[in-house]
Amino acid sequence: MDLSLPNPSWSKDMRLLFDQFMKKSEDGSWKHLPSYKNKFSRRIEDIKVFFPDAKLIKEKISQAQLFPRNFEEGLGFEYAMFHNHAEDRTVCIFQGGPYLQGAPGFLHGGAIATMIDSTLGMTALIAGGIVMTANLNINFKRPIPLCSVVVINSQVDKVEGRKLFLSCNIRSVDEQTLYSEATSKNLCLFWVWFSLSYISLGFVFGV
Amino acid sequence: MDLSLPNPSWSKDMRLLFDQFMKKSEDGSWKHLPSYKNKFSRRIEDIKVFFPDAKLIKEKISQAQLFPRNFEEGLGFEYAMFHNHAEDRTVCIFQGGPYLQGAPGFLHGGAIATMIDSTLGMTALIAGGIVMTANLNINFKRPIPLCSVVVINSQVDKVEGRKLFLSCNIRSVDEQTLYSEATSKNLCLFWVWFSLSYISLGFVFGV
Repeated sequence: MDLSLPNPSWSKDMRLLFDQFMKKSEDGSWKHLPSYKNKFSRRIEDIKVFFPDAKLIKEKISQAQLFPRNFEEGLGFEYAMFHNHAEDRTVCIFQGGPYLQGAPGFLHGGAIATMIDSTLGMTALIAGGIVMTANLNINFKRPIPLCSVVVINSQVDKVEGRKLFLSCNIRSVDEQTLYSEATSKNLCLFWVWFSLSYISLGFVFGV
Repeated sequence: MDLSLPNPSWSKDMRLLFDQFMKKSEDGSWKHLPSYKNKFSRRIEDIKVFFPDAKLIKEKISQAQLFPRNFEEGLGFEYAMFHNHAEDRTVCIFQGGPYLQGAPGFLHGGAIATMIDSTLGMTALIAGGIVMTANLNINFKRPIPLCSVVVINSQVDKVEGRKLFLSCNIRSVDEQTLYSEATSKNLCLFWVWFSLSYISLGFVFGV
């Protein structure tokens, strides 16, 4: 089930933004990115190709599910991403539910970091294939009220060999409030990627 | 219910570390920090004292629960923190469950950031009263396998007026593998804190 489609927990702001970006996607300049809970349920042998010395616990991996998709509808991370290929840019519209609380009434810094890492990671993934976040640097400017809708705007700033440098900001729907800014450095693992013929683009885009 | 106490989902490593730190707590040099799901269910009027212009959604706040405590036993964040007052240091023992997956077989960067922010935030809270994370800078050195146990070691490095500078690292139980390093800058809001007589130490320590 594609969890990036509207559900009854989405606020009016969230639906409005979704509709706006779906409209922008009609001419192909933007692309809606689907999102699944357990697209990544891969065989442990496949995982070990990437990190051969990792001590993986076989029976636990079978239960594994994508972190931001593991809350009941409306309680956790509600989000949808759209990508603009020409501009190397991804926009994430995000409504953070009541189970993401940090300070009373506001989103936990870790919940904000999770959506930043997901959005920057997706932008890097599309630009560079399989990537790993090496550095994430976040400036929290203002706390984000629980259950509000925000827009995360991310882009690739620079590519240096295997390193991708990205940045993003989080703003209110009316763009008047800047909540956070972040940069990331991602390492591209495409040397592994090109050597493994069974990894399909479907796998890459299924985060 | 104190969620930082052992439960059947804890691995042998997790229990062993917990017992070691409980032993160290007997002479008072270390202190076990309890953790609750909804200690922070405060009246919306109280919240508005801190951020008067925030647009808070009243009916949603009543459902609010602390982000890292909202998974079923063993599936998400299993952790316990211990504080050493003399050294301004907090240790967090952390077992990340199968619902925290990012890349297949490994913890999501956001889940790692969540535990880093929680541990650094707790260290800052004890050192400086009510604080807000202003910057979080994480270097991800190696991916953390899902369901493994790691140790987060955090400390206050410097205090400059209202600013607290902290750092932490994440290592394997045997300390041989360095998974991540991070620094944070936290803003101390004690000017608000001292003006509000109803905020008790119990509130401060109940994260």
